[in-house]
Amino acid sequence: MKTRIGIYGYGNVARGVECAVKQSADMELVAVFTRRDPATVQILTPGVPVLPAERVGEYVEAIDVLMLCGGSATDLPVHTPQLARLFHVVDSFDTHKNIPTHFAAVDEAAKEGGKVAVISAGWDPGLFSLNRLVAGAVLSNGVDYTFWGKGISQGHSDAIRRVEGVLDARQYTIPIDSALEAVRSGETPELTTRQKHLRDCYVVAEEGADLERIREEIVTMKNYFDEYDTTVTFVTAEQLKAEHGGMPHGGFVIRSGKTGWEEEHKAVIEYRLQLDSNPEFTALALVACARACHRMAAEGQTGCKTMFDIPPAYLSPLDGAELRRLLL
Amino acid sequence: MKTRIGIYGYGNVARGVECAVKQSADMELVAVFTRRDPATVQILTPGVPVLPAERVGEYVEAIDVLMLCGGSATDLPVHTPQLARLFHVVDSFDTHKNIPTHFAAVDEAAKEGGKVAVISAGWDPGLFSLNRLVAGAVLSNGVDYTFWGKGISQGHSDAIRRVEGVLDARQYTIPIDSALEAVRSGETPELTTRQKHLRDCYVVAEEGADLERIREEIVTMKNYFDEYDTTVTFVTAEQLKAEHGGMPHGGFVIRSGKTGWEEEHKAVIEYRLQLDSNPEFTALALVACARACHRMAAEGQTGCKTMFDIPPAYLSPLDGAELRRLLL
Repeated sequence: MKTRIGIYGYGNVARGVECAVKQSADMELVAVFTRRDPATVQILTPGVPVLPAERVGEYVEAIDVLMLCGGSATDLPVHTPQLARLFHVVDSFDTHKNIPTHFAAVDEAAKEGGKVAVISAGWDPGLFSLNRLVAGAVLSNGVDYTFWGKGISQGHSDAIRRVEGVLDARQYTIPIDSALEAVRSGETPELTTRQKHLRDCYVVAEEGADLERIREEIVTMKNYFDEYDTTVTFVTAEQLKAEHGGMPHGGFVIRSGKTGWEEEHKAVIEYRLQLDSNPEFTALALVACARACHRMAAEGQTGCKTMFDIPPAYLSPLDGAELRRLLL
Repeated sequence: MKTRIGIYGYGNVARGVECAVKQSADMELVAVFTRRDPATVQILTPGVPVLPAERVGEYVEAIDVLMLCGGSATDLPVHTPQLARLFHVVDSFDTHKNIPTHFAAVDEAAKEGGKVAVISAGWDPGLFSLNRLVAGAVLSNGVDYTFWGKGISQGHSDAIRRVEGVLDARQYTIPIDSALEAVRSGETPELTTRQKHLRDCYVVAEEGADLERIREEIVTMKNYFDEYDTTVTFVTAEQLKAEHGGMPHGGFVIRSGKTGWEEEHKAVIEYRLQLDSNPEFTALALVACARACHRMAAEGQTGCKTMFDIPPAYLSPLDGAELRRLLL
């Protein structure tokens, strides 16, 4: 029997969920819920209804796992606790510092509703977190490094768009090779913010704008750019769309440490993602977590879970015997 | 309360377990059991008794998890089912094709004894398997690649030692950069055995031996070397010890696949280990599994488990709230 999936909130990650469900023989999409006028929302999957968000309650029997695809800033802190009373849910809440608060609110709601809620699924938080946990649990005497990119940072792109005279912008976060190599060598260097990442910006300016002033405002912007080496390239709107219209991302989680009675041996664990499409890959992780969520629910578990709590086998459509035979 | 660890069988991995326990504040070593004369076995940890294997039964109350450190060929197929009736156990059984049989025998024994037995822990099988599982569950439309090395292959070193006129040898398995780069690029090439790995051999020959005949016998050896590009370098016994006396290993698990409605985007997931000491790192993974084993046992679980079945949080000494705050 397939896992019946609903999508709540329809943006880039939701479109990725549609793609992921299409790739998964054990999943089917039942309905998409939106707070916009459903008539204006064009989804990818033929024959699946798009419904107003307030009708989601009619689907408690028809949906096994509801994928919450709103934003972390204001949507998910409300949606996830609310909907975890009614549905098994998966979200991609990614405001790291607020995860404990979000967990507590969702855990209470899910337990009251007798539901399983998987939060902060995706790749960071998500697969990167999982790798930090496992690497740290195994290589206990070591240091963690996370590098992001090459990839688009939405927050930094938005910050540039707020500069006067800027019409549009894309910002790439780029890990610096020499820092990566230093960590991979098995050393445990202390790296400054500037040594770890570059910021590479592509900016469309208003006609006649003072480009030097815009450049200066960007590279000195507090919290966003002032601690980095930042390059700014002005391009036309057409160039931006043609050459910087994708949503690539990725990065590295590396743990470097020592083994042996006298700490005489080095060990390095590296996990790397290279993604042409950040939202599509995030969605694939969410859908694997939906599979696990459905299984934990079938076992009678309730409450809030993260990828830390999911037995890895539950993520896979294969059964235990197949996994052992094929992958162990 | 600390997890009280016993070691059964005292070789390289067992010494690694001692090092790992020393690094783990939540673990303590209680006893080492050996089939040799205990008086001849010198362990690293002061004050811990070395006892004859047949006395292990006296320790059922004193040991929480018994680490089975025998070999996969003949020891573990006997030891693990036998001892899983008496103890929660962890082994590193690594004969891939026999894992299903081993699992079945251990599962029956552990369930009869009311114990938890974690088998095939380590890095391959173990962490590499875990990464194959998670990468495949997420990036469902993709292809897996595993590369080993640079590292010592014990089996290939032993095979060389059986050639007439050879006194000693070490064989390094080395992944070929061009193959790695092809996979990392997001393509899914079909790679032959010869394209993936080189075999680099260091050989100590008897005085007066026909070196060209030895070289020829090695590079043409069926199942071991004939499908690879193999280099043979003759060295003195002193050079072998000084320059090739370590036990480095490692490798890469890479999954390359497609995302998107029309499979229009590439994604690559890469996991890499670089280990100065293969047995010490293997032992660190075993000890993290011992922590998880003890927790699963405390919950009343029984039977055979692999790393596929362990909620990742159970591997870590940190509690759920700390893990979410620090690592998610």
